[in-house]
Amino acid sequence: MTTDSETNTPQDFRPEARSPRGFADKRARDLRAERAILEAVSAVYERYGFEALDTGAFEYADALGKFLPDSDRPNEGVFALQDDDDQWMALRYDLTAPLARFAAQNWETLPKPFRRYAFGPVWRNEKPGPGRFRQFIQCDADTVGSARPEADAEIIAMAVEGLEAAGLPRGAAVLKINNRKLLNGLLTAAGADSAGQKLAVLRAVDKLDRLGVDGVRLLLGEGRLDESGDFTKGAGLKGQAVDQVLDFVQAGSSGGRSATLDNIAKVIGGSAEGDEGLLELSRIDAALTSLGIADDQAFIDPSIVRGLEYYTGAVFEAELLLSTTDEKGNKVTFGSIGGGGRYDDLVARFTGNVTPATGFSFGVSRLAAALRAAGREPGGAARGPVVVIAFDDAHMPEYFSVVGELRAAGIPAEVYLGTSGMRPQMKYADRRLSPAAIMLGGDEIAAGTVTIKDLDLGRELASGVADNAAWKAERPGQQTIPRGQLVDAVRKIIGG
Amino acid sequence: MTTDSETNTPQDFRPEARSPRGFADKRARDLRAERAILEAVSAVYERYGFEALDTGAFEYADALGKFLPDSDRPNEGVFALQDDDDQWMALRYDLTAPLARFAAQNWETLPKPFRRYAFGPVWRNEKPGPGRFRQFIQCDADTVGSARPEADAEIIAMAVEGLEAAGLPRGAAVLKINNRKLLNGLLTAAGADSAGQKLAVLRAVDKLDRLGVDGVRLLLGEGRLDESGDFTKGAGLKGQAVDQVLDFVQAGSSGGRSATLDNIAKVIGGSAEGDEGLLELSRIDAALTSLGIADDQAFIDPSIVRGLEYYTGAVFEAELLLSTTDEKGNKVTFGSIGGGGRYDDLVARFTGNVTPATGFSFGVSRLAAALRAAGREPGGAARGPVVVIAFDDAHMPEYFSVVGELRAAGIPAEVYLGTSGMRPQMKYADRRLSPAAIMLGGDEIAAGTVTIKDLDLGRELASGVADNAAWKAERPGQQTIPRGQLVDAVRKIIGG
Repeated sequence: MTTDSETNTPQDFRPEARSPRGFADKRARDLRAERAILEAVSAVYERYGFEALDTGAFEYADALGKFLPDSDRPNEGVFALQDDDDQWMALRYDLTAPLARFAAQNWETLPKPFRRYAFGPVWRNEKPGPGRFRQFIQCDADTVGSARPEADAEIIAMAVEGLEAAGLPRGAAVLKINNRKLLNGLLTAAGADSAGQKLAVLRAVDKLDRLGVDGVRLLLGEGRLDESGDFTKGAGLKGQAVDQVLDFVQAGSSGGRSATLDNIAKVIGGSAEGDEGLLELSRIDAALTSLGIADDQAFIDPSIVRGLEYYTGAVFEAELLLSTTDEKGNKVTFGSIGGGGRYDDLVARFTGNVTPATGFSFGVSRLAAALRAAGREPGGAARGPVVVIAFDDAHMPEYFSVVGELRAAGIPAEVYLGTSGMRPQMKYADRRLSPAAIMLGGDEIAAGTVTIKDLDLGRELASGVADNAAWKAERPGQQTIPRGQLVDAVRKIIGG
Repeated sequence: MTTDSETNTPQDFRPEARSPRGFADKRARDLRAERAILEAVSAVYERYGFEALDTGAFEYADALGKFLPDSDRPNEGVFALQDDDDQWMALRYDLTAPLARFAAQNWETLPKPFRRYAFGPVWRNEKPGPGRFRQFIQCDADTVGSARPEADAEIIAMAVEGLEAAGLPRGAAVLKINNRKLLNGLLTAAGADSAGQKLAVLRAVDKLDRLGVDGVRLLLGEGRLDESGDFTKGAGLKGQAVDQVLDFVQAGSSGGRSATLDNIAKVIGGSAEGDEGLLELSRIDAALTSLGIADDQAFIDPSIVRGLEYYTGAVFEAELLLSTTDEKGNKVTFGSIGGGGRYDDLVARFTGNVTPATGFSFGVSRLAAALRAAGREPGGAARGPVVVIAFDDAHMPEYFSVVGELRAAGIPAEVYLGTSGMRPQMKYADRRLSPAAIMLGGDEIAAGTVTIKDLDLGRELASGVADNAAWKAERPGQQTIPRGQLVDAVRKIIGG
């Protein structure tokens, strides 16, 4: 439906009620999950000394690193528009670019190193699809202004603790660590040091999971013919260099971080950059150990690539180890649920001064989905208010004093405020997932009593969780009690 | 600085680090305040049985009630852009329009009445100024699908409790209640029932605070000449109608809601609409009384207008009664910090079916500012992490095990990760508002001790809060203690 400024008049125009594609309405369950995750993770990040920061939704497009042409059509990927003064603004597509702008803008007055965490919506102007949204919540932590590998270690430790605090049981996720300088150094030593060739090597290594060692070997060398007959040109490494790269990416050891460091030392050859990368990883390992982060929580995996051109040193990826089954019974692996690394060039875009930075980012909805798949509902199970059934307008004051009492005791409660009869009111209470319905008829009011219907029990009986006979003996589905016992009786239902 | 798509190349372009006008960067203190307010208010709203909802940032422009021409220039007031399929989308400018769209879209499957609360950023494409932002956080609660005055009463009671839970002491704010039907009925009975005349009367009444009774009297009648010589045309009411309106708007009584209801009954004359408004107010009063909301928390004020054309019945306004002084010593009254009322037409825009709704909205930053002015920092005073001074790279593992211990005890802590010397590190700790700095030199490590410097005390001494002599006796500014007593000693500083 489109509007026409010539003929449309507000009076007779009726818009269709729908939201733009790729923008989701979030109901209570999803919001409770998001808030529980963000609260738990924020508490961890603040214990690490990171301070909260939030920037506005818009940045100038040039500050985002997008170079928009001055035309009617903003470029792909971001939601952009022109301000009154004709400058292009765009909604942030991540939380790193606004941090870079903020840090560059306020560098002189910030305590340094500057440690901040942030969470909030980011927007991507991409084609939406099932599970692919154009707005989603990210949560980031970054240290700007420290080149120390210990700063990377803290980010990794925080990610481990944050994911566990959010509800992922130990062993359900792992942080995998690598350092971009290792492979760079190895390639330099092998004489394969053009930017294009390095990129091709990274691309090949990134396919290890999918193609296996033999497939990657072809891509590192002359190239690979896939089953459909398509040929992918290789990185053009010579035989010995191919072996070195393959030895390197397979240097991860089940013997833990220090065993892997030993393996890496044997295969990276002798370049200054490689040695630097190895020293950084050793110091990350030492700091992690001091912080109590064990080998099963964070290990070194030389096959991790994590983005192509962005990172300059350590890279990390949080991987979910749980596999679950989908509705059709197929095994589903979640894979990466977050990642990060060291990037030294973002602030330099503004100031010209290289400023070392390192950070970790995860998607909140994706983590919520992972937690659910692991059988842990973030924020706990849904729970509606106790509903007081409205029989008679004349008794509203009684109903309201009942909900007032319950609320004062910390129990969510409401009077039904529609105009339907008893049965729809019970249905309403059931759909709100109310634990109990309260009935106050004229007889009850006269007698100073109140009738409570246990709706949780009704649902348990319906789903076969509770046993009908045992229930009748122990837990009445409906009881009439003195008004003074109301709060205790409701507490019993909620607690039990 | 502008970019030129013809000549600009990313390599040599250095954007200026600045945020678009009207978009604020929020640091830890502001975010802690916002989060504390939203957490406290959400808990109240959920106790009332309202469920959380969040919609996306964008709505189709037609759904927002803005009728954008299909041209390059989106209309004033909203941030709008065209989607790939040429439909205009706009960032939400409040939380009510998205609720109306959501309710209309999902009406069949929602539990009814539908009670939701929501908070989040809204965007207004207006000229920014001091304290005037183009993005700010609103917090709303609405009941859709109940025409009962008790639904209005619940919204009012929730607003009262929500503001108190957020930290406003009792007596610092009041909810003022009115009903649009009263004045409408009075004007109809007086024969002044054109829409234009009613609007002119509302505009005149809205100026009571500023112009007083005599000024409003002129605006209700022929018109008013102000001090600058400008003439404002009046509503054109006749003498008796003017008196009736003035009697009505002054019918508020210090004797409480029921005394005001008695006063109103005497002055509104006898129209069906006026009687309906009076009955609604009586039922709101009764429900508020049942809910324990006293006359000093919510009173009826017939002079409240609250917007001009939007509301159809009850209207309410939250007013801050505190007055404070600004930096120059001038008295500052905050006035309105939120409001709402009954609106029955929003959902009908989509469905054609009139759907009764009522709600309350407040601005979160404005409430935070009001709380600060009242001497209550929302979320408590700022508090940085304990900082472990980094003397020697070789001792990093020791430093990290100290922060690990403190964090495990729930105490925010960090190792300084820059490269500066002792003095800048202490300055860093001070700027982070750290309660204490921990020093672990070679001697301490060898002796199994740790030195703690009490930075809170340093700040207190500097500001004259603590007394130097008393301090020396009771609270050492710097102490060296066995390493095993570290956590207890830091707790003592934080607690004291």
